Amino acid sequence: MNFLSDTTAPAHPSLFDAMVRANEGFAPSYGADPISQRVRSRLTELFETELEVLFTTSGTAANALALSVLSGPDDIILCHDEAHIQRDERGAPEFFTGGAKLLPLHGAHAKIDPDNLANALNEWPQDFVHTTPPRVLSISQLNESGCAYALEELDALMSQAKAAGVSVHMDGARFANALSHLGCSPADMTWKRGVDVLCMGATKDGALAAEAVILFGDARAHFPKLQARQKRAGHMLPKMRYVAAQFEAWLADNLWLELARHANAAGKELSDRLCQIEGVEAAHPTQGNEVFLRLPEAVKDRLQAAGAGFYAWPDGSARFVASWRTTQADIDAVVKAAEG
Amino acid sequence: MNFLSDTTAPAHPSLFDAMVRANEGFAPSYGADPISQRVRSRLTELFETELEVLFTTSGTAANALALSVLSGPDDIILCHDEAHIQRDERGAPEFFTGGAKLLPLHGAHAKIDPDNLANALNEWPQDFVHTTPPRVLSISQLNESGCAYALEELDALMSQAKAAGVSVHMDGARFANALSHLGCSPADMTWKRGVDVLCMGATKDGALAAEAVILFGDARAHFPKLQARQKRAGHMLPKMRYVAAQFEAWLADNLWLELARHANAAGKELSDRLCQIEGVEAAHPTQGNEVFLRLPEAVKDRLQAAGAGFYAWPDGSARFVASWRTTQADIDAVVKAAEG
Amino acid sequence: MNFLSDTTAPAHPSLFDAMVRANEGFAPSYGADPISQRVRSRLTELFETELEVLFTTSGTAANALALSVLSGPDDIILCHDEAHIQRDERGAPEFFTGGAKLLPLHGAHAKIDPDNLANALNEWPQDFVHTTPPRVLSISQLNESGCAYALEELDALMSQAKAAGVSVHMDGARFANALSHLGCSPADMTWKRGVDVLCMGATKDGALAAEAVILFGDARAHFPKLQARQKRAGHMLPKMRYVAAQFEAWLADNLWLELARHANAAGKELSDRLCQIEGVEAAHPTQGNEVFLRLPEAVKDRLQAAGAGFYAWPDGSARFVASWRTTQADIDAVVKAAEG
Amino acid sequence: MNFLSDTTAPAHPSLFDAMVRANEGFAPSYGADPISQRVRSRLTELFETELEVLFTTSGTAANALALSVLSGPDDIILCHDEAHIQRDERGAPEFFTGGAKLLPLHGAHAKIDPDNLANALNEWPQDFVHTTPPRVLSISQLNESGCAYALEELDALMSQAKAAGVSVHMDGARFANALSHLGCSPADMTWKRGVDVLCMGATKDGALAAEAVILFGDARAHFPKLQARQKRAGHMLPKMRYVAAQFEAWLADNLWLELARHANAAGKELSDRLCQIEGVEAAHPTQGNEVFLRLPEAVKDRLQAAGAGFYAWPDGSARFVASWRTTQADIDAVVKAAEG
Repeated sequence: MNFLSDTTAPAHPSLFDAMVRANEGFAPSYGADPISQRVRSRLTELFETELEVLFTTSGTAANALALSVLSGPDDIILCHDEAHIQRDERGAPEFFTGGAKLLPLHGAHAKIDPDNLANALNEWPQDFVHTTPPRVLSISQLNESGCAYALEELDALMSQAKAAGVSVHMDGARFANALSHLGCSPADMTWKRGVDVLCMGATKDGALAAEAVILFGDARAHFPKLQARQKRAGHMLPKMRYVAAQFEAWLADNLWLELARHANAAGKELSDRLCQIEGVEAAHPTQGNEVFLRLPEAVKDRLQAAGAGFYAWPDGSARFVASWRTTQADIDAVVKAAEG
Repeated sequence: MNFLSDTTAPAHPSLFDAMVRANEGFAPSYGADPISQRVRSRLTELFETELEVLFTTSGTAANALALSVLSGPDDIILCHDEAHIQRDERGAPEFFTGGAKLLPLHGAHAKIDPDNLANALNEWPQDFVHTTPPRVLSISQLNESGCAYALEELDALMSQAKAAGVSVHMDGARFANALSHLGCSPADMTWKRGVDVLCMGATKDGALAAEAVILFGDARAHFPKLQARQKRAGHMLPKMRYVAAQFEAWLADNLWLELARHANAAGKELSDRLCQIEGVEAAHPTQGNEVFLRLPEAVKDRLQAAGAGFYAWPDGSARFVASWRTTQADIDAVVKAAEG
Repeated sequence: MNFLSDTTAPAHPSLFDAMVRANEGFAPSYGADPISQRVRSRLTELFETELEVLFTTSGTAANALALSVLSGPDDIILCHDEAHIQRDERGAPEFFTGGAKLLPLHGAHAKIDPDNLANALNEWPQDFVHTTPPRVLSISQLNESGCAYALEELDALMSQAKAAGVSVHMDGARFANALSHLGCSPADMTWKRGVDVLCMGATKDGALAAEAVILFGDARAHFPKLQARQKRAGHMLPKMRYVAAQFEAWLADNLWLELARHANAAGKELSDRLCQIEGVEAAHPTQGNEVFLRLPEAVKDRLQAAGAGFYAWPDGSARFVASWRTTQADIDAVVKAAEG
Repeated sequence: MNFLSDTTAPAHPSLFDAMVRANEGFAPSYGADPISQRVRSRLTELFETELEVLFTTSGTAANALALSVLSGPDDIILCHDEAHIQRDERGAPEFFTGGAKLLPLHGAHAKIDPDNLANALNEWPQDFVHTTPPRVLSISQLNESGCAYALEELDALMSQAKAAGVSVHMDGARFANALSHLGCSPADMTWKRGVDVLCMGATKDGALAAEAVILFGDARAHFPKLQARQKRAGHMLPKMRYVAAQFEAWLADNLWLELARHANAAGKELSDRLCQIEGVEAAHPTQGNEVFLRLPEAVKDRLQAAGAGFYAWPDGSARFVASWRTTQADIDAVVKAAEG
């Protein structure tokens, strides 16, 4: 009954097996190994376009590295006021960029309201020396309320960014969950809409510690700078082959999508069943593996008494996160505990 | 015959087994797991003193995080001019400290000359607003020429630092190799001599990716700041238990020392046998698993023709690094190739 | 009819005379001169408490230096979303602090709403490693809508800050104007209410370029760090005596308050008379030398045709700024132009 | 008898008069004033080439701003190990660049030895991700031993820099003194030899506080970035006209060169006459207004007893600095005191 976070789940055995296989003999350090190269090819195929990719071991590192090549130290990064980069990374974006300003924008269900984006782009010009110019728009997909932007919603934001000369970063810590929900192709959800740099997370979807920073289109030119920043931040692991091996196994046979579909389905069932309890209601639509519910005190007490793990969210709701390891028994148990 | 670096070696199977065992069920994220707690106790025992410890996955990250709690942005870090933190980390110490100045000091065999340290402490006062004050002395043990400072040599540097109010950082990426060479206790080589913060590396000695930042004595008070910097740098892995598990297996039954002894012995044999070849001579004493040799062109050519992996060092010598996986056959093969 | 900004006004002749007098013979550099010492005594007397003071030549520098001793690189500075430090300093606070996060809080008339402060202090805890902790509350007095917080309004904010262990910075670029409006003592408006560091501006009130960073109470202990940051930022002028001389003349015989009273009175008259024109209304109360008016297009056109200088404010209003040099003729002329 | 520093001298009255003249009526803020524009034209004429110029009020600020547009945060700035930017600016270059590494190079009389530059460029490659690449060579003219590089000496350094793709910064805090000594044109000593960015100081040569950052050739493209960094660092003074006015008066009728010639001649006479005293010898050639002498203890004692101001230099010599205000009487007095 541990629904605290998808990061409390173990890693999928296939990824472990791949790491053990990678652990044979000697291999070039720092990403020059053959596995890293194979994953790059696989991603190119998957995203149907030329790209550059760099691996890292935490989502915070991936986001901060990505932002550090898109934003200078005296630029603005536009994001939702509940964005992980704003609220949960202890200032990593500010650190990696050398002091960029995160400008928080509001919107329901952790989605940036397009009107608020328009106002911000209007109030903060690109060329006035006294004020900080917006250079990056950061979008979380899934976002921090567990919601996925629809493709039209992505368009409404990215078209504004592109018109203003602002780059687009996508925080895809739960990319597979969002993709599963929308049912579109990886390309459709990213570069075809305007994403310049994608952080694609595997850790919350079955890996030990594996995140990819992917550069599309013109942003590929930032690759040498990205590598330098990775090294400078201590994120260029000597034995990078172990991270690449996780990605190889994760992408093989669509395992990554299967795991996400399982987690999403578990989240949906959990949400649906708990919402049938008197007084329980969804704080946000359940579109991935995260469930945000407003719980009556009695339900909360029963869950805590039963030892169910969930997280008190800043907006007053209770967050439950399903993972690839969530079982039917886990769901039944937590629902039973909630019903009392 | 791959002697390029100890980071090209695979991880020891025991560490893998420990990770697989750690991969059961759910566990608290970010270092609150029970394995991390057990390793902390084990290290306390091993170092015979109270300490704080934080795990990370690269030596660069460990060093930079350690330095970031000892040095402010407008302070000086004293180090050898060939130190890894000066020469091989793409400015990570400057990045993590927010702009500290590394002041390079010279000395033979990558050991800081105590007279040069004295001069620097004299020329750069602690309290003059116009100049940057020295706040940290960084010592590599093994150092970048593969040498270990003797205990008296450590005393000659650290006593000066302490007298000037300067903290001491030890870069122990090859800590086990140095300890093996000196045959003293971990305490004798560190806090008993004045080390405030130790970076203890396992990656080069059989781990996948596992480094520990250890705070001794008064420096323990920096622990909350160290954690905040770790988070901000993207180095607080969600599933930290996998790093702790590597350390647990590595420290168990003195595996870490056995692996280092093996690597040191391989280095010594390699050095001794190659030095018997006409024209080959040691550029530095071989005191650990790294061998620096001046090679005649003919020998170099033969080695390259045979596909032997070694590294052309900036000082003109050839560096060979033995590891826990180096076999007698590897040594025989490279010696045979060199002999022609 | 130049009401663009109080920074377009010339310097008061008394300050020039003082600089000329200071320009005799040799004097110690970098703030060790006797004039600097005399001003320090004068300020101690004026504020009725022990203090430390450091001079600089721009308000942006004063604010950023002040914030750099109160906030670490991974801390939060709470401010109004229209604050000068947030909107008009090109990220100087982020630069000087090494990456602090400015968290913008809303409130009418550029005053931070106490409820919004309470929410922020609640949502951003002091001791959670994943999130950035609030360490400084920054209050502008006069603020960016030309309003002065009443003493009770200051209390409502500062008492919350103090209870949470958060330091208080006051941006007093128009300190004299605010003080004039409230009619209280300098002590009453600052340290007696909880201000730890005050940036007291003279530039907008008759100086060439003269700002003081004043540390009260426990914050005095930051003085050595403040000097180091001043030097490191290139703001420790060799011939600091010229800045101190401006302050000495400005404070003498209450010149600073007279100039502010003149500017405030001019602002009030301008506001009152323009508001009598059909369709003109005050966007914010006029409490100092800044006047924010909503103007009908016809009035705007007439003013522009007449060459009247004012500034289109982001909130849609027109900002007119009176200064110590504003004459009755200036006011009459702009009113006449507006009336058409 | 104050020979402590040229920054202890007062400002030349002409510059004051110009500031008083500038203090008439209103003027655009932040450098858009007509005086700033006139100075720009004058400098273009003087340097016989298109250029961009930005004014600031301290040499440290000028250097740090200049370096911040030439060097990224993970680059190397090559300089002499006694350079002002390395030794006397409390880490300002590291601060403004976001963490660049200053690599100190040795050479007699504070001149970088061309062989040491060659070695550094060889040891630190441009394209290796693990090491920090050199991006800027900084040359002080006059340098920190009071010497001027001859034109051929400048060529020997700058040609190497250009070949390696490294930009050149010239710290010209005593530019006029160096120019006076060499007797060449401003163009000959700067962009014609390869200088990309010049910091041209007036403060030590008769100004209150006036320094110019001048961009030549392709470096002119950095101007918008330079302005942004100036604003962000709090160095864009609202009433910038007062700095420009100093420059205008300083450049008029070659006043700047006359003042430098006077100071140089005073330095030369002081050096020549003191060196005739038994046991006194020059530590470095006197080529500008700075005199470095090795003094017998008895001479030192006599000077101190007489209240003569000089500075104990880190290399053991005594530094005397002449200025535009040094009189024949000052020289006679100090010589007499030394003779005893």
